[in-house]
Amino acid sequence: MAKKLWGGRFSKPTDPLVEKFTRSIQYDYKLALYDVLGSMLHVEILRECGDKYLTKPEYSSLMKALDSIYEKVKANKFKFDDTCEDVHTCIQNELYKKVGDLALKLHTARSRNDQVVFATKMYSQTVLLKLAYEISGLRLELAALSKNNSEIIIPGFTHLQHAQPVYLKDYLQAYIDMLIRDAERLVFIEKNMKITMGAGALAGTPVDAAKYNRKTSEILKDKSEFLARLNLCATSNSLDTVSDRDFVIEIISALAMLAMHLSRLAEDLILWSTKEFDFVELDDAFCTGSSLMPQKKNPDVLELVRGYAGRLNGNLVSVLTMMKGLPLTYNRDMQLDKEPLFNSFEIVSAELEVLAGLVKTLKFKKNSIAAHLKDESLYATDLVYYLVDKKVPFKQAHTIVGKLVLYSLAHGIEIKEMPENILHEFSEAFVKKEIVKLFDPLVSVRSKKSISRKK
Amino acid sequence: MAKKLWGGRFSKPTDPLVEKFTRSIQYDYKLALYDVLGSMLHVEILRECGDKYLTKPEYSSLMKALDSIYEKVKANKFKFDDTCEDVHTCIQNELYKKVGDLALKLHTARSRNDQVVFATKMYSQTVLLKLAYEISGLRLELAALSKNNSEIIIPGFTHLQHAQPVYLKDYLQAYIDMLIRDAERLVFIEKNMKITMGAGALAGTPVDAAKYNRKTSEILKDKSEFLARLNLCATSNSLDTVSDRDFVIEIISALAMLAMHLSRLAEDLILWSTKEFDFVELDDAFCTGSSLMPQKKNPDVLELVRGYAGRLNGNLVSVLTMMKGLPLTYNRDMQLDKEPLFNSFEIVSAELEVLAGLVKTLKFKKNSIAAHLKDESLYATDLVYYLVDKKVPFKQAHTIVGKLVLYSLAHGIEIKEMPENILHEFSEAFVKKEIVKLFDPLVSVRSKKSISRKK
Amino acid sequence: MAKKLWGGRFSKPTDPLVEKFTRSIQYDYKLALYDVLGSMLHVEILRECGDKYLTKPEYSSLMKALDSIYEKVKANKFKFDDTCEDVHTCIQNELYKKVGDLALKLHTARSRNDQVVFATKMYSQTVLLKLAYEISGLRLELAALSKNNSEIIIPGFTHLQHAQPVYLKDYLQAYIDMLIRDAERLVFIEKNMKITMGAGALAGTPVDAAKYNRKTSEILKDKSEFLARLNLCATSNSLDTVSDRDFVIEIISALAMLAMHLSRLAEDLILWSTKEFDFVELDDAFCTGSSLMPQKKNPDVLELVRGYAGRLNGNLVSVLTMMKGLPLTYNRDMQLDKEPLFNSFEIVSAELEVLAGLVKTLKFKKNSIAAHLKDESLYATDLVYYLVDKKVPFKQAHTIVGKLVLYSLAHGIEIKEMPENILHEFSEAFVKKEIVKLFDPLVSVRSKKSISRKK
Amino acid sequence: MAKKLWGGRFSKPTDPLVEKFTRSIQYDYKLALYDVLGSMLHVEILRECGDKYLTKPEYSSLMKALDSIYEKVKANKFKFDDTCEDVHTCIQNELYKKVGDLALKLHTARSRNDQVVFATKMYSQTVLLKLAYEISGLRLELAALSKNNSEIIIPGFTHLQHAQPVYLKDYLQAYIDMLIRDAERLVFIEKNMKITMGAGALAGTPVDAAKYNRKTSEILKDKSEFLARLNLCATSNSLDTVSDRDFVIEIISALAMLAMHLSRLAEDLILWSTKEFDFVELDDAFCTGSSLMPQKKNPDVLELVRGYAGRLNGNLVSVLTMMKGLPLTYNRDMQLDKEPLFNSFEIVSAELEVLAGLVKTLKFKKNSIAAHLKDESLYATDLVYYLVDKKVPFKQAHTIVGKLVLYSLAHGIEIKEMPENILHEFSEAFVKKEIVKLFDPLVSVRSKKSISRKK
Repeated sequence: MAKKLWGGRFSKPTDPLVEKFTRSIQYDYKLALYDVLGSMLHVEILRECGDKYLTKPEYSSLMKALDSIYEKVKANKFKFDDTCEDVHTCIQNELYKKVGDLALKLHTARSRNDQVVFATKMYSQTVLLKLAYEISGLRLELAALSKNNSEIIIPGFTHLQHAQPVYLKDYLQAYIDMLIRDAERLVFIEKNMKITMGAGALAGTPVDAAKYNRKTSEILKDKSEFLARLNLCATSNSLDTVSDRDFVIEIISALAMLAMHLSRLAEDLILWSTKEFDFVELDDAFCTGSSLMPQKKNPDVLELVRGYAGRLNGNLVSVLTMMKGLPLTYNRDMQLDKEPLFNSFEIVSAELEVLAGLVKTLKFKKNSIAAHLKDESLYATDLVYYLVDKKVPFKQAHTIVGKLVLYSLAHGIEIKEMPENILHEFSEAFVKKEIVKLFDPLVSVRSKKSISRKK
Repeated sequence: MAKKLWGGRFSKPTDPLVEKFTRSIQYDYKLALYDVLGSMLHVEILRECGDKYLTKPEYSSLMKALDSIYEKVKANKFKFDDTCEDVHTCIQNELYKKVGDLALKLHTARSRNDQVVFATKMYSQTVLLKLAYEISGLRLELAALSKNNSEIIIPGFTHLQHAQPVYLKDYLQAYIDMLIRDAERLVFIEKNMKITMGAGALAGTPVDAAKYNRKTSEILKDKSEFLARLNLCATSNSLDTVSDRDFVIEIISALAMLAMHLSRLAEDLILWSTKEFDFVELDDAFCTGSSLMPQKKNPDVLELVRGYAGRLNGNLVSVLTMMKGLPLTYNRDMQLDKEPLFNSFEIVSAELEVLAGLVKTLKFKKNSIAAHLKDESLYATDLVYYLVDKKVPFKQAHTIVGKLVLYSLAHGIEIKEMPENILHEFSEAFVKKEIVKLFDPLVSVRSKKSISRKK
Repeated sequence: MAKKLWGGRFSKPTDPLVEKFTRSIQYDYKLALYDVLGSMLHVEILRECGDKYLTKPEYSSLMKALDSIYEKVKANKFKFDDTCEDVHTCIQNELYKKVGDLALKLHTARSRNDQVVFATKMYSQTVLLKLAYEISGLRLELAALSKNNSEIIIPGFTHLQHAQPVYLKDYLQAYIDMLIRDAERLVFIEKNMKITMGAGALAGTPVDAAKYNRKTSEILKDKSEFLARLNLCATSNSLDTVSDRDFVIEIISALAMLAMHLSRLAEDLILWSTKEFDFVELDDAFCTGSSLMPQKKNPDVLELVRGYAGRLNGNLVSVLTMMKGLPLTYNRDMQLDKEPLFNSFEIVSAELEVLAGLVKTLKFKKNSIAAHLKDESLYATDLVYYLVDKKVPFKQAHTIVGKLVLYSLAHGIEIKEMPENILHEFSEAFVKKEIVKLFDPLVSVRSKKSISRKK
Repeated sequence: MAKKLWGGRFSKPTDPLVEKFTRSIQYDYKLALYDVLGSMLHVEILRECGDKYLTKPEYSSLMKALDSIYEKVKANKFKFDDTCEDVHTCIQNELYKKVGDLALKLHTARSRNDQVVFATKMYSQTVLLKLAYEISGLRLELAALSKNNSEIIIPGFTHLQHAQPVYLKDYLQAYIDMLIRDAERLVFIEKNMKITMGAGALAGTPVDAAKYNRKTSEILKDKSEFLARLNLCATSNSLDTVSDRDFVIEIISALAMLAMHLSRLAEDLILWSTKEFDFVELDDAFCTGSSLMPQKKNPDVLELVRGYAGRLNGNLVSVLTMMKGLPLTYNRDMQLDKEPLFNSFEIVSAELEVLAGLVKTLKFKKNSIAAHLKDESLYATDLVYYLVDKKVPFKQAHTIVGKLVLYSLAHGIEIKEMPENILHEFSEAFVKKEIVKLFDPLVSVRSKKSISRKK
């Protein structure tokens, strides 16, 4: 049985069911590195307060011991004792093994309520940075795909019906634009996430605020460039610090939006890889088969990406509901923020990584796409503009072409095959040799001047 | 690298990222027992079709091998290869190790699409039965607590304000009634969950339906009483069978409601164990402490129970969103039903277990409760009824007593201390010696005749 | 300014912002009919208690007045005063206009906490009955569509990829089966919804329980057949009665599942009506157009049905979150159950109605579907069964056909066009004249024997 | 029957059920002002393109007509025809009444897909500005409350158990800090919301992008200062413009977080106004009563605020689910973003307004709070620090004080009443005359130096 960080006031041991029910080590072990860093910072600060809290030799012993734990965790060699209540207890117990009773001084002027927020925020910042990098990875693949297929024009869809021809590169750029917004959101969150110390359990500590402000980034500098640029300071409101989980919700919300974007990309690619659309060929390495049907080549990766949007929504609801109506300050309910947060990180990261690979190997089927572009209805709007250019008011032109399309469908004759006299029954403005040129995807996309494409 | 259940049609191996992304063995290993049972049933059925599919010796070899896997899984001795795609592949590979190429015949006329539904339903039925038992466990503890404190009267609350005195046993019975409804819902789900075979991938199989109807429960009977009473039959609609996840949503929805009920019980007990309410004493074994504040005895178990209601909502949203807008039939998105389902099962089960222990050790603080019952406002409604009995129309009586309460608060004088002439300024109907008797919790609860308490 | 049902205890009037913020008349007016019925029942019961509460003439006056309100509400002629707090106040004020101070006696031994549950449950039962009817309406249209197209075979999909040929009627029956489950859920909810009286605010009333049990259905019998069969009785737990909203969550959950089913049907029909799939023709009367593109005929109805699944999920989350962690008994938060409930009722009802019309006018495009059935990959599984019948173990047969498909794709040659010697390179078991017969949808669907179709 | 913006291609009229089902005028009428402004901009731009689209007189007529509609809408005098499909159709029909066929030219080079995004974004920006103002309103009331009660110290809570004394002003500041974050989020959203024109239905328009860039803010400048500073430009990706609803989700997500914060404030105030806590007195004008219990003064406003957090979560889920898996570009599902958005705006705005009033009238009950501060357990942590200052390692000090608290409870003797020899049994470091001074709230809060309070 692992030691606890509390106990004197209790007349009997905790029930094993309670230990199991309240335990978080099975997921918060992920915070270990940041918990140790926080402890190192804390030791620095305690030492700054003079011998009262830590003598110089005590300081050196603690730092040495913590540093060795830090290295072990970093090297993935730290073995977490899964009977511990949480990662903080686990690290504390390890420290005790190394320096004995001296370890007991580490808890001076700090509380797990503050510790857990500190470590979770540092962890989150690290992951956000990684995700921003992975978003770029997918963006670059989409951009390369776009560039390599820059001449392809596809039928554009609204309501999943043929609308107008559009450049494939514009289609792909729409997804790139979504990813850019996603990345901007993550950056905003990361910038606004204040990492503080000194909140204690809720009421602050006897350590002077200046100590936290001055000291916080010293040790981290040695540890990594990334950590060194963290903006650490004393809490400005200790009650808020321990009871705030806005950053968790902000992150999951931004990731839910990202997952929603990916679900749309997945849907488009699932549709485009059906026998019916046949716009793309997914690489064999990014598909799976069926145990029964030997011909199957299924877009499982894309389907899972689509489905995971639901998981992200669920994680968001989970934390938002959990926080609803909680009185200040810290309540144990808030421990339940971590699994949804970590799970969201992992899913989105895996999605970005696997999609980058899938996009990289995607092949567009030009001939098949070209066949779809023969559908005359894609050019109906261009016929309207043609009439408008000939001074037919827009709404009338719209009705004329609508009727023309209906006639074409009802009589099974293409517009470009109709004799001019038939066309004139709809509008005298039609000149056959002019309009036949309109049924051309390139003519169509080039006639759209309103878009200020990003360079 | 583990073998797959498919592959001939593919010209290159699956990308490792894809294998990792699509893998489900890390959670669907829980279905192993039911997957093996399903395979045993399937072998029986294939044998029934004659030598075409399996000869008698082949049948015997397969059954023997499957049975040994079954026993290993049951004894928790089966080692799942975590490089497998899923539990079905894992079992299949184990079978291959045992009987070689003969194992390859097992997939005749079946598909994972059908297999996974079969195993998930069987697993769910088993867990539902377990949960029903655990609900009973908590109910019994609440009933015992109720019986042991049957004379206690507490202030009843609406809007968290003192309303009227009520029996504690009625309060506890309200929670028992919620649990009864919860159990009824689970029973309804379990009864309506059709466990079928023969759907194949989506289109059925060449095996005659009668074979499924006749055979399905034979082997299970030997395995357990519970399994023997399962109502197995041929699918009546193979497309629905493989694409339906209603049972998953029904279960999570019912569990979300249960978790919501438990969150309310938790909230009441959290409030009652505050210094301010002080109605109950939680047992030390069911509380935890603080790493900073030595006096703390915190109701962490109850807080986690309250917070987990959010997790259940999240799981429900996760699956409902995932299923939204999926075309028939099976789509890989549906693999994502399992984690939310299993997680919901585990959370609710753990909650029921730990709450049963907590309730069992709960102590009510009679003296403290009695002090709260001295609040006169709890009897204001009884004063209204008193006036109504004296022929004052209800709404007028209500206004009179409202004014009396206001007067009492404003002048800092209790109603039962007011001289009769003051009382008469509010209503001539008041007789002081009669009304002083009304400020008695027992008189109050006994005057309520409208409740048909269950025996 | 409308009168309130309370006030004596207050020293100043309610702030207008509060009146606006807490008001519910803008949506709970829908409960009016059931509130009046409840009041009539309550008057009956009060009279049963003897002259103490109501004399015979008082009883008659109240009943007459209530009956005239009832008729006015039923005829949609009741004008709701939107400055009232809620529908209960509104009705009470109207009664006051009719019978003056006598109206004030109506509140004897009742509370809005009980009233609102009573009326909401009665309203819900009525709507559930209506929805069950509307579900049948859509089922019948699907059944008719199925019958009228009973010979059509379509490509069945898994992962939105061609899988195996299936009967269209089986596809449609899958949706009918979902609707059957939906209806069963609503019936279960309706049956288990206990409509009680006598809970008062939370603690019961001085009226004898027997009076509620004996009296409750008398008046309703005159009002309608449906209401007459309601099973009314005294509350068995007054605390539970006023604080329970399970029935609301059960209903929204069942409707969310129904809406999810409809979103899948919508998705299938959206896909099938694309230029690419072209399986169905939606009737012009059930489509809409574009203000810009004259050719557009969009499946907007289906898209809204798909999107509304999100709204239902949201309504469910709204109520589940609202109830989380509420202490017993009634809390004002619970007023917020009504908008999500009513909104869910309305959406699902509108969906069922409009889909019935859309399904009734749906046309299947047989020629286009037939063209899709020419895809050889749909018959690959049948080739596997063919080999299995020739004693090739299933998994090997699966691999052989997989390779055959790959060869066919790579060389652009259809399997049925391959010379026998090529076929034999994959398996000696192939006999060309036999296998060419397998590429036939009817042969394929008829070879599946495992389905016990409902009659 | 109102006219539609489309129709030529259809061979029969829309079914009335479809018109009702797809109609949005009942809620999107709120966009009218911004739709008219958009139309005025569009007319400017068309005129810039020369006589081809609009002659000068045509331009003048359209502008005049639109301006008169604008003024009518602004003055709330525009009567919306509720048989119209949507607000855009409604405005168009009104224009037709004024200028006849000339109105038909307005649709040149634009589409509702673009129009609806434009108007919704402009509307949202206006409401966000209003909300930011209302957030400030509540902040100022909290700040005033804080200032007026700056000397009050209250028991701080963790796990709803007494933790340590804290300044009430810090407690209130925690909520102010949450509101500051909320406002920052809204500002970020508002800043990043790109309002563009020129997307057409999805593919852009023939109008040169420069025209949109140059022209967009001209007209708006005359209309209002706020609108003048809008940053309008040509779309950079027309496909993204019409299919993006990120801004809706961002807003609802930020508002859900705000609503969650308010639910916590509500919970604290609900608790504090119970008979048991008795920290605050809510003003009579901000409470409501009971129809049955005359003494009741209920915090209904706060309960609704708590409950509405659920509604916001629901709205968020509604839109996130709706967007999941939608293929590009516009799909009609997206119309369903508006009700959740508008509803979220209204709820949060009403909450902020009513809470500002409630906070303004809140009274703290100093005597009652002072009584709660007598609880010795609040000072246990200070005893630990006392021991640490005397060189007892923190963890040991923690255990010592824990045991002391247990002893105090078990023997019913306060720590400050214990003779020194008893104290010494726990630690020799205790000096009675020193420690008795620690049981003082002011001493306690002053000993916490770690907080850098904002000025």
